[in-house]
Amino acid sequence: MKKLSEMTLAVIGVGLIGGSLARVLRAKGSIGRVIGVGRGEANLKRALELGVVDSWTQHIEEAVKEADLVCVAVPMGAYAGVFSAMKTVLSEQIVFDAGSTKQSAIQVARQQLAGFQRFVPAHPLAGTEQSGVDASFESLFENRLCILTPEEHTDPQALDVVEHIWQVAGSRVLKMDASQHDAFLAGVSHLPHVAAYALVYAISREAEKQKGAYDPFDFAAGGFRDFTRIASSSPEMWRDIALNNREAVLNKMDAYQGALQEIRHSLETGDGEALLKIFSDAKTRRDAWVKSSQM
Amino acid sequence: MKKLSEMTLAVIGVGLIGGSLARVLRAKGSIGRVIGVGRGEANLKRALELGVVDSWTQHIEEAVKEADLVCVAVPMGAYAGVFSAMKTVLSEQIVFDAGSTKQSAIQVARQQLAGFQRFVPAHPLAGTEQSGVDASFESLFENRLCILTPEEHTDPQALDVVEHIWQVAGSRVLKMDASQHDAFLAGVSHLPHVAAYALVYAISREAEKQKGAYDPFDFAAGGFRDFTRIASSSPEMWRDIALNNREAVLNKMDAYQGALQEIRHSLETGDGEALLKIFSDAKTRRDAWVKSSQM
Repeated sequence: MKKLSEMTLAVIGVGLIGGSLARVLRAKGSIGRVIGVGRGEANLKRALELGVVDSWTQHIEEAVKEADLVCVAVPMGAYAGVFSAMKTVLSEQIVFDAGSTKQSAIQVARQQLAGFQRFVPAHPLAGTEQSGVDASFESLFENRLCILTPEEHTDPQALDVVEHIWQVAGSRVLKMDASQHDAFLAGVSHLPHVAAYALVYAISREAEKQKGAYDPFDFAAGGFRDFTRIASSSPEMWRDIALNNREAVLNKMDAYQGALQEIRHSLETGDGEALLKIFSDAKTRRDAWVKSSQM
Repeated sequence: MKKLSEMTLAVIGVGLIGGSLARVLRAKGSIGRVIGVGRGEANLKRALELGVVDSWTQHIEEAVKEADLVCVAVPMGAYAGVFSAMKTVLSEQIVFDAGSTKQSAIQVARQQLAGFQRFVPAHPLAGTEQSGVDASFESLFENRLCILTPEEHTDPQALDVVEHIWQVAGSRVLKMDASQHDAFLAGVSHLPHVAAYALVYAISREAEKQKGAYDPFDFAAGGFRDFTRIASSSPEMWRDIALNNREAVLNKMDAYQGALQEIRHSLETGDGEALLKIFSDAKTRRDAWVKSSQM
């Protein structure tokens, strides 16, 4: 088998994630060649200009035919089309994705690539609220977790190669069950996004109804800015994530709505002790996390 | 009437807010003398050491007797005791506070200082999740809003002096009705705090129930860090704020819980268009706010 540094990588979707992976592998001299694939010509030209890819094409089959490795870094909604387009030219290539929901990725791969055992579901826990190749940077994955969720029949050699790629990119790699991954991420990533979008939406809708001399956003400060930063993320991407991890997200929403209801009850009954306990538990837990993660 | 630069300011509660106000007025040479007042001797000694105050005392009456201006910068729960302690020595002094909820501040002042017309309710919209005099800094109020919520009978000269103080501190001063203030702040400040505490609490409680090989917080990243930053704020302070602005907070919680329910419904029915509309509206509104506020 070829060494990684002799392999050709096709990156389908040269955005924040795909672009950053190409950048770090190229910067370390760890990859032979990178072919960028996408629909937007302007973004692909920009990727070439920035030195993120060696060449580009808008044709998936063309790139996959020449590749040893294929990274699928497109929104979940585009997976079926992408897998279907590469189907006829797949043989010995190793394919991995970088999507935020793993059960849905596996489901689409099963439907489109039935019997293909060299697909490795992966999710690098990294990102910003920006998108596009201009937002990509070499150190995005450094010291971040990358979670692989192989199935029982996943080719062990393919799994090793994909693990190695993400380690070269600077990530700590963990392997776990896709459903476990989806439950964890629903809580600490998908739910916060839903909660932030919901808050801006609620305040904004109220402001429209009332239309007074002031706008409530005039009174927003630093706490609001940080709390709502993720509400500036791509709405299309987060719609896809929410729908594709629906069960787990609804589950975490249950827990969240329950906690809000508990706070509401404490407020209504003027139970300061109960409120203090909830707020203190949260602060203790969050401070401990900050300390241990050094985030 | 004396000039501000000849006046003595008593700061009751030399923490983040009180300490920062003392710092900026002293740095600009805009105040004659600052007396720090508080319960904790260590914090007061530290304030003197840092040059935040000229002197300190643990006795409210003693400081207020000597002062021209009194800044009450303590948690809402301590207002009644503070006002009550200064009652017998009040004559020509101007008193203002810096609390986050204004109707409750006015209510306590009315009860404790019945007939006194030189109390000016004020709220500088500034802060961090830190507290104590060590967290205070000179530029905290720069370019921030400070909202004054005078009553009909508030002495106009006292109002002018307090407006001037906050302008010297670098703030843009707005005057409005206390109930209007409380409604706006409930939406863009109090609700986000409740929402952030609730989320960490919900995830943490679920983790305790499940106790698996992993902790969900292991999978939290940058989005989670920013979203939950305000959940590291003082639980006592936020319990007081929530209870003291109960009606307005419950009102905004209605709107928020309604938005979450709407998202939940869209998820349950797989209505991607409705989800996309909610997420897009929120992103558009938030991006416009960032642009206009340059936050």
